[in-house]
Amino acid sequence: MAKLTRTGISLDRELLLRFDRVIAKKGYKNRSEAIRDLVRDYAINEDVEENRVVAGTLTMVYDHHRPKLSERLIEAQHHAEGKVLAATHVHLDHHNCLEVIIMRGRSNEVRHIADQILSLRGVKHGKLVLTTQGKGL
Amino acid sequence: MAKLTRTGISLDRELLLRFDRVIAKKGYKNRSEAIRDLVRDYAINEDVEENRVVAGTLTMVYDHHRPKLSERLIEAQHHAEGKVLAATHVHLDHHNCLEVIIMRGRSNEVRHIADQILSLRGVKHGKLVLTTQGKGL
Amino acid sequence: MAKLTRTGISLDRELLLRFDRVIAKKGYKNRSEAIRDLVRDYAINEDVEENRVVAGTLTMVYDHHRPKLSERLIEAQHHAEGKVLAATHVHLDHHNCLEVIIMRGRSNEVRHIADQILSLRGVKHGKLVLTTQGKGL
Amino acid sequence: MAKLTRTGISLDRELLLRFDRVIAKKGYKNRSEAIRDLVRDYAINEDVEENRVVAGTLTMVYDHHRPKLSERLIEAQHHAEGKVLAATHVHLDHHNCLEVIIMRGRSNEVRHIADQILSLRGVKHGKLVLTTQGKGL
Repeated sequence: MAKLTRTGISLDRELLLRFDRVIAKKGYKNRSEAIRDLVRDYAINEDVEENRVVAGTLTMVYDHHRPKLSERLIEAQHHAEGKVLAATHVHLDHHNCLEVIIMRGRSNEVRHIADQILSLRGVKHGKLVLTTQGKGL
Repeated sequence: MAKLTRTGISLDRELLLRFDRVIAKKGYKNRSEAIRDLVRDYAINEDVEENRVVAGTLTMVYDHHRPKLSERLIEAQHHAEGKVLAATHVHLDHHNCLEVIIMRGRSNEVRHIADQILSLRGVKHGKLVLTTQGKGL
Repeated sequence: MAKLTRTGISLDRELLLRFDRVIAKKGYKNRSEAIRDLVRDYAINEDVEENRVVAGTLTMVYDHHRPKLSERLIEAQHHAEGKVLAATHVHLDHHNCLEVIIMRGRSNEVRHIADQILSLRGVKHGKLVLTTQGKGL
Repeated sequence: MAKLTRTGISLDRELLLRFDRVIAKKGYKNRSEAIRDLVRDYAINEDVEENRVVAGTLTMVYDHHRPKLSERLIEAQHHAEGKVLAATHVHLDHHNCLEVIIMRGRSNEVRHIADQILSLRGVKHGKLVLTTQGKGL
């Protein structure tokens, strides 16, 4: 954790009450933490837009009975060597698997790896999340 | 404008500097205004989720030579009487028009009207924006 | 309209039935039109990513009693000369206005104009939609 | 895999060529697979909107030195018993961890669990992905 500083904002009383009500529903214990989360999210978007190094997770659902798909998935991950940090696999039912691949790299590289994997036949659905490495936040 | 109030937040100095840099790029003159925008956006999401009355704008691009499309678009807007406030039309080229329909109503109603219009044959692309009526913000 | 061509896709029967049910709810009269909309939307994303010329609409809600805001909004639009095609204004209530600005330009330019306007004090909320000019779709 | 069926769509030749170019860039080997992915994604949205049982993954970045955060994260996951299937943890640096929690449940329940976790102090950023269980796709 870095040095804390304090900043003040002025806003309409009615808006503030409404914000407090919404964040309470979401589970926030205090307003400062909720505003920090908004500020961080806004700042993180810049990392993604500027093609900086980010962390990314690709969630995908696929049919593991599809011929050769498992080999192709492993191959794609090995091609992306140094960028894939870990992968977790869950059996949803007899046919369907959910897999999450955790990556680190420049945002464009991570997006490219995700595109290649999601376009494989047998991968039914998937979504990529790009987030921060956490430094300076 | 309602009564102004003031609230303080504490956050990492490094994060604050980074936030300041990003908002300057976007054109913000000060931090307080940028944070207010984040707070408002967060609060407005609730209006949409809770099916409250919101304002909405539907942007769509269509080919006005498509037989009967103009009649169908007008008909759809009249079916939505009391909810369509205005519509603006721009000629993009000989074939293509862009039209923006401004609406007010419960978020689910506005979504339904947009779905019906976007599914018409000849409407090539479109997106709905849901926003606030502005009260209490 | 350009020359029509035909393509076939094979997919699970169960998925197709489900798709048919969802698109009927959204108002689609037939499957072909619904799939064309998905294909167009996918292709249009590329225009935005590649910084091609696109159409854009900025929806914003603001308080027109805010001192100097109207002048600033007009000034911002004039700075963007040649890119702002039209603007429509709706009075939501005594204080609040909704305005939609229709633009055409490279996606990054249109985004920049939107950022500058949304960061003005008194502009409470806004969203940018980027879409196609319609050619070749 | 269920029974395959075949459907035809007609669309502008120019649009089809453009679509082919975009999907090739993304890594698709053929058009049919790309369209199937669009169709599945559209159908899956309905599961989420209708509060059906879905799979979900929550990606979050946090500072594991934050006092009591680890306990609170474990507690939150245990409260969600039967819905959390697995969790994977990666050490990004001395302070920062990335964790992915894989869940299954009704979309509103999964969203609620995610909200509670993301609002904890020390959780810096996070995003929830909702996807299908894979059946009938």
